[in-house]
Amino acid sequence: MNKTILLDKRPVGLPKVSDFKLSTEPDPVMSEGQILLKAAYVSVDPYLRGRMNDTQSYIPPFELQEPIVSGMIAEVVASGNTRFKEGDFVSGLLAWKEQQLSEGEGLMKVDSKKAPLSAYLGVLGMTGLTAYFGLMEIGKPKKGETLVVSGAAGAVGSVVGQIGKILGLRVVGIAGTDEKTALLKNTFGFDEAINYNTCTDMSRALAAACPEGIDVYFDNVGGRISDAVLFHINNFARMVICGAISVYNETSMPKSISVHTFLIRKRALMQGFIVFDYAHKYPEALAQLIQWYQEGKLRSAETVREGFETLPQAFIDLFAGKNQGKMIVKI
Amino acid sequence: MNKTILLDKRPVGLPKVSDFKLSTEPDPVMSEGQILLKAAYVSVDPYLRGRMNDTQSYIPPFELQEPIVSGMIAEVVASGNTRFKEGDFVSGLLAWKEQQLSEGEGLMKVDSKKAPLSAYLGVLGMTGLTAYFGLMEIGKPKKGETLVVSGAAGAVGSVVGQIGKILGLRVVGIAGTDEKTALLKNTFGFDEAINYNTCTDMSRALAAACPEGIDVYFDNVGGRISDAVLFHINNFARMVICGAISVYNETSMPKSISVHTFLIRKRALMQGFIVFDYAHKYPEALAQLIQWYQEGKLRSAETVREGFETLPQAFIDLFAGKNQGKMIVKI
Repeated sequence: MNKTILLDKRPVGLPKVSDFKLSTEPDPVMSEGQILLKAAYVSVDPYLRGRMNDTQSYIPPFELQEPIVSGMIAEVVASGNTRFKEGDFVSGLLAWKEQQLSEGEGLMKVDSKKAPLSAYLGVLGMTGLTAYFGLMEIGKPKKGETLVVSGAAGAVGSVVGQIGKILGLRVVGIAGTDEKTALLKNTFGFDEAINYNTCTDMSRALAAACPEGIDVYFDNVGGRISDAVLFHINNFARMVICGAISVYNETSMPKSISVHTFLIRKRALMQGFIVFDYAHKYPEALAQLIQWYQEGKLRSAETVREGFETLPQAFIDLFAGKNQGKMIVKI
Repeated sequence: MNKTILLDKRPVGLPKVSDFKLSTEPDPVMSEGQILLKAAYVSVDPYLRGRMNDTQSYIPPFELQEPIVSGMIAEVVASGNTRFKEGDFVSGLLAWKEQQLSEGEGLMKVDSKKAPLSAYLGVLGMTGLTAYFGLMEIGKPKKGETLVVSGAAGAVGSVVGQIGKILGLRVVGIAGTDEKTALLKNTFGFDEAINYNTCTDMSRALAAACPEGIDVYFDNVGGRISDAVLFHINNFARMVICGAISVYNETSMPKSISVHTFLIRKRALMQGFIVFDYAHKYPEALAQLIQWYQEGKLRSAETVREGFETLPQAFIDLFAGKNQGKMIVKI
């Protein structure tokens, strides 16, 4: 029997393991043109929380009693499709099943010789592309400017900060533990890092870390951290709104400081985006990311859990910030 | 003696007449190269409220016991400067004085044959330019899209809506009295208008007025009206943050619904701006505005008060929405 993980109940607030159901189904039987995939690495991402609500968004909500779908690296274990052969590894949006069938649509082959397979979920996957497009297309960073990244030790944030350094910016990261801030400075080369859990005055900490103000803010968290940033933005600042993990589990409409007067006074911009909007530019961006990776300028940060059954807990742990870099489950 | 109006106290919350002081000074004595100006029409604008606080912004705060400065049309009553002659009318940022001297810097001659003088403070002045640049440069309107304007019967809003109609958009205005909503529909050609004071459910009213959602939001007010708009924006919506009159008099930091999740879900943009940033493009914009005005496509809306002493009250009345279109004081 084939294992799968279904959405059993729509979470209220912070998801619980009991919102998911480990289930089994008959082993898949391949038809012509199909490939049989075996899950190798599964990506768990904060944005999945949105799909667990029954609300309209940029992708439809998950159905109850249907498997969760997320980014995955899978091995082709049998192929009836000329595009793929046994032993290939592919990356794509796939169901939380140990094995599954596919016609190959939307799958991309990944090369384990260029980088470890898990990197294709992180720095060389949607995570890296999200960091790249948000920073480049909306942040429009210029050498010498100051970039602040929230959720900086997370999957996207750690890549954003590294790209910022490659481009010659002053990079300040905000994260939730001393272990993470040390990682940002020592491993990823951030200029400064602020621990929002121990810092008693975020506004003062930002002022100290950003003596010339903030030109680009890459926002993964929303909430009070982003409120504090507003007081330190420079004229013509760009605020890239990538995520708002601090409010994803709110059950009432979250409130913030009103951004309007800040935006006017500083002629500043806030813009949300979704990586899919830049699909037409994936190849060039990926080529750049792979080049930086191979040159050793871009490091992959991963927290790897093991075992199919750990998927729900790994996902839930994102909201407690238990990951450093990309949270991945190795099957 | 020459009359002037000084800032006597920094207002706390809504400004009061007693925050201002009517004063006199010796009549000005002209030196070589100077011109003597006599105030003709004075513009009072919500943004002046910000300059009355002792806080750093895009222009320095007014000094206590110094005259307020705002947009003005003045007559040249004596000239020692070859660029100007007696009887010319000029537009510029000038002090609240009946008469004043100038070297002519920053002044622009205006032609009373092309349009009534007061129009150069409104639709053909900074007001018109603010509407034009905010809408065109940030709103990037496309024919057939839906444009919502808050503060729609105000100076800037009434021009924004008219430009929207010229460009072939569906235009919905939000204003505070039935008289104003009638003006928007009957005089300015808006497709729909919502009275935020009598409307019991702004979100529902917006849904009804914008059956295809909101593509461009031109925001003059901030606060709860702008919160309601967020629920109806389309993918890739542009929110032009021009003013936030609803919060200018707040004495504590105003709170709003957190915009982050809306911006992400809809890949939407919010951007503040100040008309001065587009100074290099004033001539082309003004030429376009004058053309539309002369073709009868763009109407001037004005509330004209009379007498130098009425300036403070006229300014204060902006916050109660007592103006339709541009609030002007005729001296």
